[in-house]
Amino acid sequence: MSIRIGIYGYGNLGRGVVSAIKQNSDMTLSAIFTRRDPASLKINDPGVRVLRAEEAENMVGDIDVMILCGGSATDLPVQTPALSRLFNCVDSFDNHSRIPEHFAAVDKTASESGHLTLISCGWDPGMFSLNRLYASAVLPEGNDYTFWGKGISQGHSDAIRRIDGVLDARQYTIPVEDAINSVRRGENPVLSAGEKHTRECYVVAEDGADKARIEQEIKTMPAYFADYNTTVHFISAEELKANHSAMYHGGVVIRSGKTGNGNNHVIEYSLKLDSNPEFTSSILVSCARAVHRMACEGMKGCKTMLDVAPVYLSPLPADQLRKKLL
Amino acid sequence: MSIRIGIYGYGNLGRGVVSAIKQNSDMTLSAIFTRRDPASLKINDPGVRVLRAEEAENMVGDIDVMILCGGSATDLPVQTPALSRLFNCVDSFDNHSRIPEHFAAVDKTASESGHLTLISCGWDPGMFSLNRLYASAVLPEGNDYTFWGKGISQGHSDAIRRIDGVLDARQYTIPVEDAINSVRRGENPVLSAGEKHTRECYVVAEDGADKARIEQEIKTMPAYFADYNTTVHFISAEELKANHSAMYHGGVVIRSGKTGNGNNHVIEYSLKLDSNPEFTSSILVSCARAVHRMACEGMKGCKTMLDVAPVYLSPLPADQLRKKLL
Repeated sequence: MSIRIGIYGYGNLGRGVVSAIKQNSDMTLSAIFTRRDPASLKINDPGVRVLRAEEAENMVGDIDVMILCGGSATDLPVQTPALSRLFNCVDSFDNHSRIPEHFAAVDKTASESGHLTLISCGWDPGMFSLNRLYASAVLPEGNDYTFWGKGISQGHSDAIRRIDGVLDARQYTIPVEDAINSVRRGENPVLSAGEKHTRECYVVAEDGADKARIEQEIKTMPAYFADYNTTVHFISAEELKANHSAMYHGGVVIRSGKTGNGNNHVIEYSLKLDSNPEFTSSILVSCARAVHRMACEGMKGCKTMLDVAPVYLSPLPADQLRKKLL
Repeated sequence: MSIRIGIYGYGNLGRGVVSAIKQNSDMTLSAIFTRRDPASLKINDPGVRVLRAEEAENMVGDIDVMILCGGSATDLPVQTPALSRLFNCVDSFDNHSRIPEHFAAVDKTASESGHLTLISCGWDPGMFSLNRLYASAVLPEGNDYTFWGKGISQGHSDAIRRIDGVLDARQYTIPVEDAINSVRRGENPVLSAGEKHTRECYVVAEDGADKARIEQEIKTMPAYFADYNTTVHFISAEELKANHSAMYHGGVVIRSGKTGNGNNHVIEYSLKLDSNPEFTSSILVSCARAVHRMACEGMKGCKTMLDVAPVYLSPLPADQLRKKLL
């Protein structure tokens, strides 16, 4: 029987989930929940109900897994614990430092209500975390390196937008190639944050705004920019839309470690993504399959991809996986 | 309490396991079992018993996990099912086409005796299989590519050694860089076996042997060489030992796939290994930890790394993993 999916929140991620479900024949999209007027969404599929967010509780029993597609700043900290009282859920919560707190909140409601929820299912946290875990388990004496980009960082773009006189902005995180290559050669360099990444900012300023002051405020902003080689370009709103709307991203996780008498090994995992949200959506959908299966086996509470046996993610039966992929 | 490990078979892999256990403070090496005279092994550790292979059954109760370090051709097909009657085991069985058969044989004895055994724990099968599974689950519409090398293929070296007039040989499998780069660019090329790898052979011939005939026999050998661009070099036994004894290896698994309206994504996992056997040994040791924990939770029968939740492989507790790696 097909796994019945609900989508909670219909932005870039939610649209990506709609596409991803079509690539997986063991799943059906049952309903989309939105805070906007449901009539404003163009889904073009009579089998999919579009409902107001508050109507979710009426769909208990019609949805096997709810995929939460809200943002990590304010949506998911509230929505994932709340919806885990009603459904098995999956989210892509990506605020690294607050994961333990989010885990605890979700674990409480999911455990109390007997549901299973997987949090932080994306590429970082998510696929990159898995690779850091596998690599460090196999090479206990070594160092991990994670590089992101080239791609737009939402958090850094938001930080620039909060500066007085800024109308809009995009910030690209760019890995330093020399640093990556040193790591690849197994040199185990000690790298500061600024030696690993540079930051390139495209800013739309208000008419008459003091651009020198804005540039200075960006470049000296603690944590976000002060420690990095940062470049600032002022452009028009039209240029920003035309040239800086692409959602490509990517990154690399490398572990370099030693075994025996000084033999060195380098493990590298890399992603080159045309669409950051669509790739994350595809991960969410494979995790929804895993959640459904694990819940059917009686698992409850909050878990992450680190707890998921890989077989649960694939639609193929275990004997086929052994034959084809092992 | 420390996990008590037994090593069954003391070649390159067994020696690698001895080193790897020293890098993992939650494990203790209890005993090594060998078909040679135990007195001939120099272990230099009074805590480690060196015993004849037949004595394994006397050590039931003193070993939590037995790591099997024999070869896949003739040792493991017999040893893994037999020892799974007595112990929880881990092996690195790597004859891909015979994995379903090996799995069935091990599953029978392990299930009957209530033990848990993980088979095919290496890098291919093993880490590469995991990456093929994760990538295909996340990108269902796409293609997988696996490239091996540069490194020595034991099977191809053995095939050359069986030719009349050959004293010794090493065969390097070399990936074709243009093919890898096309895959990395997301071009989804259709590649024959010979378009993915070339084969370079270093051969020590008997005095007076017909080298032209040997070269011809190598280059026309079906399955092994006939479909590849193959180079043959005749060298002395001294040169072979001096220049072709290194055990480095590596390879790449790439999946390229599409989501949404034609957005392309490339996932790449690569390994650069100074010592093929030591890296495999390190994987075996982390899998031994997983087997011990999973057996303690009551799991039985035969499993592979595809069935292992990643958390079981790491010595760190789950909350630490979430905090540090997620």
